[in-house]
Amino acid sequence: MTEHADTFRDQVLPSDVEAVREMVRATGYFNDEEVAIAAELVAETLARGDEAGYSFLFAEAGGRVVGYSCYGLVPCSTVSWDLYWIAVHPSQQGSGLGRRLLRETERRVREAGGLTLYAETSGKAQYFSTRAFYEKSGYATAGVFEDFYAVGDAKYTYCMRLDG
Amino acid sequence: MTEHADTFRDQVLPSDVEAVREMVRATGYFNDEEVAIAAELVAETLARGDEAGYSFLFAEAGGRVVGYSCYGLVPCSTVSWDLYWIAVHPSQQGSGLGRRLLRETERRVREAGGLTLYAETSGKAQYFSTRAFYEKSGYATAGVFEDFYAVGDAKYTYCMRLDG
Repeated sequence: MTEHADTFRDQVLPSDVEAVREMVRATGYFNDEEVAIAAELVAETLARGDEAGYSFLFAEAGGRVVGYSCYGLVPCSTVSWDLYWIAVHPSQQGSGLGRRLLRETERRVREAGGLTLYAETSGKAQYFSTRAFYEKSGYATAGVFEDFYAVGDAKYTYCMRLDG
Repeated sequence: MTEHADTFRDQVLPSDVEAVREMVRATGYFNDEEVAIAAELVAETLARGDEAGYSFLFAEAGGRVVGYSCYGLVPCSTVSWDLYWIAVHPSQQGSGLGRRLLRETERRVREAGGLTLYAETSGKAQYFSTRAFYEKSGYATAGVFEDFYAVGDAKYTYCMRLDG
């Protein structure tokens, strides 16, 4: 039986670069370019600190990273935040960890003065469960942009108001 | 009488960093942070080339930069482009240069395989003329995000399809 995620951690460690790369790859949801970007954001944050503009939340089970989110204030906004990444290791999927990570992320954004948290995903069939995740978590559809990522691949923008 | 813009140039020159800073500041539309970002994108492109992800178009009159646009392919998209900046020096406003810059930018994006060009601006009263510029130029409103930049300051996302 899989260990339950027992710790949330905000601090970024050097080992998180590879932990994120492996976890994001293991989900099977992301292509090579996206996997590389996910790991790069961790590395950039280790190198530049807060100036990079990314905050992280890691969930650990038995000392191993099994889920994370990456989020940040939208440049030129004082109140809007983007959820850049949220991923849960396949071994933990269905455990409610994604929802817990989302709620913990929302709480941190609210405490930092955020009013709205935005999340973007694809309209393709393979992202049905991702869209369902946001919708079941109470996110509203703020916009749908047809043919955004590619012809036939729309961008869905979800948002959660944190003030009500 | 003001000289008419006579040259369009795609190449970025070292002198463009300050030219853009002065021009963007002179419009009166942008705050200090935004002016700094506009100049920084030019500097980053000089330093990193195409890898930076920004393309530029400069309009000159008598050898002086009097307008420009900055645009690029949206990361993780193969067909969507963002118009990051478009600005015309106050001495040239009302001359139709903004529209010419926009059309020349659209043409370059289309030639690069772009399907849609997106532009974002604020819903505040002071950006009425900016919104009117896109609307009169045939741009559709792809989304309106309330309280986006700040409470009471919405983000308007405009788009132009380049295939029809």
